[in-house]
Amino acid sequence: MENILMIDTIKWVDGSVDAPDAEAAEGAKVMILDQRLLPHVVSYVECTDYRQVVDCIKTLAIRGAPAIGIAAAMGIALAASAIEAADVKEFTAKLRPAIDALLGSRPTAVNIQWAAERIGRLIEDNKAKPISAIKGMIAKEGVVILNEDIEINKAIGRFGAEFIKDGDTVLTHCNAGALATGGYGTATAPIRTAVAQGKRVKVIADETRPVLQGARLTAWELMQDNIPVTLIPDNAAGELMRRGEIDLCIVGTDRTVRNGDVANKIGTYSVAVLAKEHGIPFYVAAPLSSIDFALSTGSQIPIEERSSDEVTNIFGRCEIAPKGVAVRNIAFDVTPAKYITLILTEKGAFKPEDIHTLAPKGQKGQKDKT
Amino acid sequence: MENILMIDTIKWVDGSVDAPDAEAAEGAKVMILDQRLLPHVVSYVECTDYRQVVDCIKTLAIRGAPAIGIAAAMGIALAASAIEAADVKEFTAKLRPAIDALLGSRPTAVNIQWAAERIGRLIEDNKAKPISAIKGMIAKEGVVILNEDIEINKAIGRFGAEFIKDGDTVLTHCNAGALATGGYGTATAPIRTAVAQGKRVKVIADETRPVLQGARLTAWELMQDNIPVTLIPDNAAGELMRRGEIDLCIVGTDRTVRNGDVANKIGTYSVAVLAKEHGIPFYVAAPLSSIDFALSTGSQIPIEERSSDEVTNIFGRCEIAPKGVAVRNIAFDVTPAKYITLILTEKGAFKPEDIHTLAPKGQKGQKDKT
Repeated sequence: MENILMIDTIKWVDGSVDAPDAEAAEGAKVMILDQRLLPHVVSYVECTDYRQVVDCIKTLAIRGAPAIGIAAAMGIALAASAIEAADVKEFTAKLRPAIDALLGSRPTAVNIQWAAERIGRLIEDNKAKPISAIKGMIAKEGVVILNEDIEINKAIGRFGAEFIKDGDTVLTHCNAGALATGGYGTATAPIRTAVAQGKRVKVIADETRPVLQGARLTAWELMQDNIPVTLIPDNAAGELMRRGEIDLCIVGTDRTVRNGDVANKIGTYSVAVLAKEHGIPFYVAAPLSSIDFALSTGSQIPIEERSSDEVTNIFGRCEIAPKGVAVRNIAFDVTPAKYITLILTEKGAFKPEDIHTLAPKGQKGQKDKT
Repeated sequence: MENILMIDTIKWVDGSVDAPDAEAAEGAKVMILDQRLLPHVVSYVECTDYRQVVDCIKTLAIRGAPAIGIAAAMGIALAASAIEAADVKEFTAKLRPAIDALLGSRPTAVNIQWAAERIGRLIEDNKAKPISAIKGMIAKEGVVILNEDIEINKAIGRFGAEFIKDGDTVLTHCNAGALATGGYGTATAPIRTAVAQGKRVKVIADETRPVLQGARLTAWELMQDNIPVTLIPDNAAGELMRRGEIDLCIVGTDRTVRNGDVANKIGTYSVAVLAKEHGIPFYVAAPLSSIDFALSTGSQIPIEERSSDEVTNIFGRCEIAPKGVAVRNIAFDVTPAKYITLILTEKGAFKPEDIHTLAPKGQKGQKDKT
């Protein structure tokens, strides 16, 4: 029996979910599980305008690279449904502000760009069709991306579960679970699959300061599925490794590049260094949608820095530091390929130095500026 | 000009602070700065009974190895002042419950034991004297330990400042500052001395989950003294090191043992591993009162585990995790000697493997059980 979180991270609602058409798209809504309120409140933000989707992404109501890719696709579909245009050229031009706003909502994860490019190709491939048909196809594409994402995660789970033995304890950082994706999760996929295979697996969840995705989201979703999970402060991972209490690490990624360098939530790099020091395998679950074959090395990945409030003021109501203190709130870090045992994709498990073999034919990486 | 925090961590108040006598000791109070309320409220707990001191130590109103050593000495003095005894034997027996309660208040730092042994020797050396005189001597000893501690920290500062260059950025973890000691601090001593020498020094303070001593205490006390400090989540230290933004690390210790292994606040070990990986020097400021020459290796140090509430419920009013989640709250970790560049003591800077040369003559370490 597979463990799948029974709560949707994001939903397209228009009365015709499986095959939305243009008419349905016009009155559509995107329902986004408000992860800012988890684990205490389960509530959805109803978006009828792409700007609301942008806001949800910026404020972390929805987060996780695959999930914000899906949200971006659905946001573009909402924008498309509201456009009046005489031809595809005008339609594309009128869609641009929505795409730009979504691309600008968060810089590090490549999935928003991936989704925008996918919808761009869809429009290009169907430019001879009526605008109303194109609107319907875009609406449908968001739902297709969502459903594909779950299947991709299950494939990652099948490949990744081979590296989890009965009785293992897996450390994960941040949330690359069902809540970070269309469902099932990336980093949690091998865990869910191993559990479904009857293996006894325990999870150690780093709480993941400052936004506490590990404490609020990973712990919660694993508890929902009765997968044993223990919460620790981020800084306790090293001591548990020293004591021999961690068998392997699996994390997600916001953007992986050609040479196998991996951007992921701040603290991932520390976990990777600690894992290497203790001879513990360190796996990265990376759907192809999160791999940016246009970049050659991790130094080219834009790294978001966020407001100091996230660090100093928990949930906006618990001030933990002196007023006016200087803060660095770097939202992501880059783990160089040499710390990574294998990258788990829907095409199989790859050494980081081999990940470039998955690139679309003929695509080359940018020259590193450094 | 030296930067010294203008707030006392702990004070002995009996109207005759410099040389308390037996009569004065009888009406004495120990004033403990309530660090649970910092940085928002500056307030003292007034202790007239040793049990209040025990409570302050257990609940972290006062913390930091040297500071709780001082508190223990003053707590014993409070207990002593209340004892009615016909002779030293009865006096010592009646003092035992207070000493045991203080020794049991926190297990990892050796300073409580160090203070209790010091007062034990004082009683033994003066057992021919009247009980009233012994009470006065114990009361005085607490104040002597406090004043000595500040001088010891300044000596650590003089030795340690040599390793800080003009323009350096120092990472510190937890609080081994003025608030963890009688004043001036251990890990902060080289920083304060370097600043007094005119060097430009910046500090990066790990926030130090779960109790946030870095955010609440280190950031606050350095801001009070106008020493530039930037707060980061614990898990960002690795990324800053990778970017070349940290020049050296200095931390305190709760118990250092003969082979140079160091117990300190959870997360210290991770910082040490990361520092080694980046070729960054890692210093431990260790007054002799925190070195336990009776233990041979770090595996012999008792490591306190604390309530899960500290992790899941910030300040007892901000729940950050699902109800009922399993938690590991290991309060300290052990950094093996091989990660430590130098141990900074009041007798100079020592390689960890040489720290045993400071042991009292003839004292040997316990055989390791492992």
